[in-house]
Amino acid sequence: MGEKKFRVTIEPDGRSVYVLPDTTLYEAVHEAGIVIKSDCGGMGVCGKCKVNIVKGNYEQKGSERFISEEDIKKGHVLACRTKILSDMVVEIPISSRLYEQKILTEGLKRELKLAPNVKKVYLKVDEPTLEDQRSDLDRVWDGLKNIANKPKVAVDVLRRLPDKLRKGKFGITIVLNENDIIGIERDDKSDKNYGVAIDIGTTTVVGYLMNLNTGEQLAVAARTNPQTSFGDDVISRIHYANTNKDGLETLSERIVTCLNDIIDELCDKGGIEKKFIYEITTTGNSTMNHLLLRLNPKYLSQYPYVTVLRSSIDMRAEDLDIHINKYGKLYAMPNIAGFVGGDTVGVILATDLHKSKDIKFAIDIGTNGELVMGNKDRLVSCSTAAGPAFEGARITFGMRASDGAIEKVVIDDKGVHINTIGNAKASGICGTGLIDSIAELLKVGVILPSGRMMKREELPEDKPDFIRERLIIHEKHGVAFILVPKSESKTGEDILLTQKDVRETQLAKGAILAGYEILKNSLGIKDEDITEVLLAGAFGNYIRRDQAIRIGLLPKLPKDKIRFVGNAAGFGAKMVLLSKDMRREACEISENTEYVELAVKKDFQEIFVNSMGFPEK
Amino acid sequence: MGEKKFRVTIEPDGRSVYVLPDTTLYEAVHEAGIVIKSDCGGMGVCGKCKVNIVKGNYEQKGSERFISEEDIKKGHVLACRTKILSDMVVEIPISSRLYEQKILTEGLKRELKLAPNVKKVYLKVDEPTLEDQRSDLDRVWDGLKNIANKPKVAVDVLRRLPDKLRKGKFGITIVLNENDIIGIERDDKSDKNYGVAIDIGTTTVVGYLMNLNTGEQLAVAARTNPQTSFGDDVISRIHYANTNKDGLETLSERIVTCLNDIIDELCDKGGIEKKFIYEITTTGNSTMNHLLLRLNPKYLSQYPYVTVLRSSIDMRAEDLDIHINKYGKLYAMPNIAGFVGGDTVGVILATDLHKSKDIKFAIDIGTNGELVMGNKDRLVSCSTAAGPAFEGARITFGMRASDGAIEKVVIDDKGVHINTIGNAKASGICGTGLIDSIAELLKVGVILPSGRMMKREELPEDKPDFIRERLIIHEKHGVAFILVPKSESKTGEDILLTQKDVRETQLAKGAILAGYEILKNSLGIKDEDITEVLLAGAFGNYIRRDQAIRIGLLPKLPKDKIRFVGNAAGFGAKMVLLSKDMRREACEISENTEYVELAVKKDFQEIFVNSMGFPEK
Repeated sequence: MGEKKFRVTIEPDGRSVYVLPDTTLYEAVHEAGIVIKSDCGGMGVCGKCKVNIVKGNYEQKGSERFISEEDIKKGHVLACRTKILSDMVVEIPISSRLYEQKILTEGLKRELKLAPNVKKVYLKVDEPTLEDQRSDLDRVWDGLKNIANKPKVAVDVLRRLPDKLRKGKFGITIVLNENDIIGIERDDKSDKNYGVAIDIGTTTVVGYLMNLNTGEQLAVAARTNPQTSFGDDVISRIHYANTNKDGLETLSERIVTCLNDIIDELCDKGGIEKKFIYEITTTGNSTMNHLLLRLNPKYLSQYPYVTVLRSSIDMRAEDLDIHINKYGKLYAMPNIAGFVGGDTVGVILATDLHKSKDIKFAIDIGTNGELVMGNKDRLVSCSTAAGPAFEGARITFGMRASDGAIEKVVIDDKGVHINTIGNAKASGICGTGLIDSIAELLKVGVILPSGRMMKREELPEDKPDFIRERLIIHEKHGVAFILVPKSESKTGEDILLTQKDVRETQLAKGAILAGYEILKNSLGIKDEDITEVLLAGAFGNYIRRDQAIRIGLLPKLPKDKIRFVGNAAGFGAKMVLLSKDMRREACEISENTEYVELAVKKDFQEIFVNSMGFPEK
Repeated sequence: MGEKKFRVTIEPDGRSVYVLPDTTLYEAVHEAGIVIKSDCGGMGVCGKCKVNIVKGNYEQKGSERFISEEDIKKGHVLACRTKILSDMVVEIPISSRLYEQKILTEGLKRELKLAPNVKKVYLKVDEPTLEDQRSDLDRVWDGLKNIANKPKVAVDVLRRLPDKLRKGKFGITIVLNENDIIGIERDDKSDKNYGVAIDIGTTTVVGYLMNLNTGEQLAVAARTNPQTSFGDDVISRIHYANTNKDGLETLSERIVTCLNDIIDELCDKGGIEKKFIYEITTTGNSTMNHLLLRLNPKYLSQYPYVTVLRSSIDMRAEDLDIHINKYGKLYAMPNIAGFVGGDTVGVILATDLHKSKDIKFAIDIGTNGELVMGNKDRLVSCSTAAGPAFEGARITFGMRASDGAIEKVVIDDKGVHINTIGNAKASGICGTGLIDSIAELLKVGVILPSGRMMKREELPEDKPDFIRERLIIHEKHGVAFILVPKSESKTGEDILLTQKDVRETQLAKGAILAGYEILKNSLGIKDEDITEVLLAGAFGNYIRRDQAIRIGLLPKLPKDKIRFVGNAAGFGAKMVLLSKDMRREACEISENTEYVELAVKKDFQEIFVNSMGFPEK
């Protein structure tokens, strides 16, 4: 770290990034993986990226166009107009955050036209007379005729029509889902129209409560996938489903319970009643999708690896015991093939890969790594069993990215510098910390490109003592490097990076890199043909690109070609919730994206082994 | 009865008709309301109307074309080639009966193209390989691609796909209902494809088991509508539904139980398994339809008499607790308006009224009398509360048309001649017996055109003693005519036609005739513009046209303009079961047929009162 860098801490997140002098706050925030509002992309002309500087030196020019001088003096500035001149603490207010909607302007490069499947319509129909003896339903149909053509109605919904119609003096709210009437409500309740998009990850499940009338996101809730206790990756889940009595039912019930909990939390946070949620959309990898729908994933894990269902499916949520409005629907996104599921369709949809002229590479790193490469002419995809290493599992001191997790490691000539989430005492290491520590130890020569961790006595004499001292042979964990000594850790024991952890990481990053190579081969292209690498997924958003390239998790491409796109899979689920057109596109993506079964590729094993080493430099 | 007539008894039905000498057996059978096979309409060229003469003199010419001389000698002849020369007993074998399919050739005047909603398809799909990793459902979809476009499949059906596919070595039977996959069955079961059409009358419910692959009728089963114990007409049922706790639920449960019983009986008779019944179609008047679907019929009985549902509805039979195949569907025929329901749509469909150039009048006499008049350019309909008199209810000695019911009465100068169903001892009087007895008593002057029954002492002196003696004043029933003296009755009491019975009949026939007048007025036509009167319904088929005209139940038109069309409503239900095209037509009929609300017609009461008297001659 020869060059001077400033540390920028973003509040209330408590996340930190190191940036070069003269970097703008806008870039720093972006680098930290936080999505800030901006219509103009940092050109200083929309005035949306307002932040409050709490501490530090800076220079700003152009904020006065949108902010009063008095406020500027208090440190209220536009992030894009402000240069960082020292370490800094900056607060990004809620009003300046866009969360995933950033993808709308940055990833999607187009407007998402709000056209949800669910529409609520308040009708005031004519009262019947002897001259107008139309049936109650005909009366409603006639009222809807510009919107829907004689929509079907389930008999149990219809049963409520006559009384509601008369109690509301022939004013009634109709809930339409495509061409079905799924609800009949007394009086005008057309403003209460909500949906939930859910991204079911192998490890983490995230739900988004959306206002279907406005497209606004009202709340987010996340849970650990409770299936985790039956296996931490998809193969072990399938194994559980197939080797235990009612295994499939158990896994299915767990995820359904999780979804119901998330929905309850979203209702609380959003301050809405559950009965006004009319649709859920779900996305997830093929295994998650099968388990949710209680489709047996057995044949997915057996030669020749076939799913039961590729396409989307549409059903009553109640049929899966998911509790929203009694007649509400569930739409599970279409999948591609094998283990590549609706999450990848979501990534493609959210990043517009299927419409891109340029060749791009999108990578969604979760417990599985899903990779997709190509452009509008051809897209190829594959799934690699990256394992849950980057989510903290299978790592000796691994943990989820929560308070006390080592999320950043810098080794310079002064020592080993650690940053933890929430600035709490260290209790473990999360994915970004794992990448950082390996990258830094590669840099200082403690880890060799082969992945072998040097023993203390093997270390060249020019290495500083503070490194030498941290290299130990732990009685239980073997060769290891002390990241945080017990005196400083929360747990009172040394927090280690072990040789085993390095090997685990090599397997994960090797699988991903091998997938990348195979996709390139499939398309017959080279590294330089790739114009952009899109990094999706919760974890992807926190990765420091330099370090990821350093350990070979990402291909060696110019850093500015790598773009964070947030939880693109989840964003895809939101898009299909908000737009029927997006469902049609998702369906096309599902049908047209090619799938490469890595298991069939004769050269996969070889490429995989070759991909496991770390780059020399 | 000056002219000599022969009595022809048809076996095994036990039904009798009186015919003039030289009448053909074909005509006699037809007159008896029994449907005999004939492609040529009695021209002697198709050879299908084979019957066995058990007793009686006859002359045949032309049977040898189709029947061996030896068999002819045994009395095996073609009905259309045989003249009746004496009283006769004739057996019509099952093989010569067509049941309602007669309508196909006589009423419909066109072929019904077999195009049922339910299709079973045996598919042999490719086994998956690493080169062909299509999902299980995609594999099925591709196999179906010439038949259906990616049919939807419920998730619980889909769950069974992977194992069934593999256990059947990738041979599988798919059950399609329109564009839904409603069943997945191992191996080839495409030949087991059944449906049930059900005509839900206010008093009688009839079910037909149909082979959906061949159109063949396999069994018929009938039950009394168990709702009868809660009221014998639609108004009293609606009243029960609205004035009793769970009244609607009770009525709905009763009819559902009845349907389930009928289905069980049909399976027994047809020798098939219930799980191979994939669809039910139902028809009935609006009230029956509402009660089946558990739609509140309250507003149908209140000003301004509005139904909840006019159109058809399509649902899982299981949602109504009707047990056929678990995923089987129920299609309830569309209705017209007010009390005119799917039964009338069925009559129009079966009789092709909506395509007729000539103006026709169809009448379905049940507990309600539904009337429809017009041609392809315009059809008007109405419903008259005929009451259940013709079904034996509200008549002092009334009974259903079953063994022991007086079904025919002839009074000539020798005495009162009675015929009962099954030639059993008389135990009551059914609809045809009621009409006959009133018509005959009008003829002999015991009943006056006003409806008043003469007292014995009022009877002119020229009336024979055997009539005089039968006119009594019963201590309980008042003025009455003894049809069968207690010495000859099964019950040991006199079987009477009472003054009250005559009044009840006047109300019923008055309502029907008034409806007829109003429809004529609506169309602005006269009696002579009507080219044909179509008599539908189980009862209609047994009516003797002369007698019905005599009492003014039918308009005074030439007898040969009156045609029996069998249970046309039930036949309509079969048509929509066997043909999607017919569903479309039924829908058009439902939308285009006008409804006349008799209650609004200012002149209805006057016409009704005028219609209650009996014709002078």
